[in-house]
Amino acid sequence: MAPMQPLGRERCLELLASVPVGRVVFTLRALPAIRPVNHLLDGETIIIRSSLGASLPSTATERGGAVVAYEADMIDVEARTGWTVVVTGTARLILDPARQTRYEQLLRPWVDEPMNCIIGIDCDLVTGYELGAGR
Amino acid sequence: MAPMQPLGRERCLELLASVPVGRVVFTLRALPAIRPVNHLLDGETIIIRSSLGASLPSTATERGGAVVAYEADMIDVEARTGWTVVVTGTARLILDPARQTRYEQLLRPWVDEPMNCIIGIDCDLVTGYELGAGR
Repeated sequence: MAPMQPLGRERCLELLASVPVGRVVFTLRALPAIRPVNHLLDGETIIIRSSLGASLPSTATERGGAVVAYEADMIDVEARTGWTVVVTGTARLILDPARQTRYEQLLRPWVDEPMNCIIGIDCDLVTGYELGAGR
Repeated sequence: MAPMQPLGRERCLELLASVPVGRVVFTLRALPAIRPVNHLLDGETIIIRSSLGASLPSTATERGGAVVAYEADMIDVEARTGWTVVVTGTARLILDPARQTRYEQLLRPWVDEPMNCIIGIDCDLVTGYELGAGR
């Protein structure tokens, strides 16, 4: 069995920025929901494009809205080493045209579904663990 | 951009069983929470060992309790191919001693945290997608 080592906020955000894909966790019709998406990190805001805007509560305006979790990990199942980072924060629709254009250029959808909204997730609470550290 | 192809229930469960690790999604103090765990599939029940029993509502008895989501995926970030499976179902504490012993033998924790409970997640709702299928 491997020890689990907590990671500091900065290291967590570095790791998150080092991978292109994570999973957004939200509540949909009172049930827990999760979807893999590709992301980029702009400062301390996670940017995703998605069709899930329609699923987020209608309260998800530019000023704030639903609290979501965002998770990324990199786990080597053979070696049983790796890391996981979880961010909890408010998801906001990004409606500013300049930011929309910039993110649309930087963040291309991986699938040919309508990606009709850009969402920023504030990194309010950041936790992470390294698995198998120090072995 | 790659097409996203929905997968049938049987194929989803096959894929889920083919990997050792997934992510359990639940509600903790009214916030969305997610943790990577290792799992096994016993018929149509996902078995996980975890210390999260304490976090699940106290209603999570043998008869049922919290509705959780369980996600696994395998994504090739270079090729942008892969799959994701999401199960939504009731999480039950497994208290039957014979099943406890069996699962404790079959499912070894990857980390040296106290794994004081065994949880079964019913595969009530199963959805999955293949990414980049048919390219």
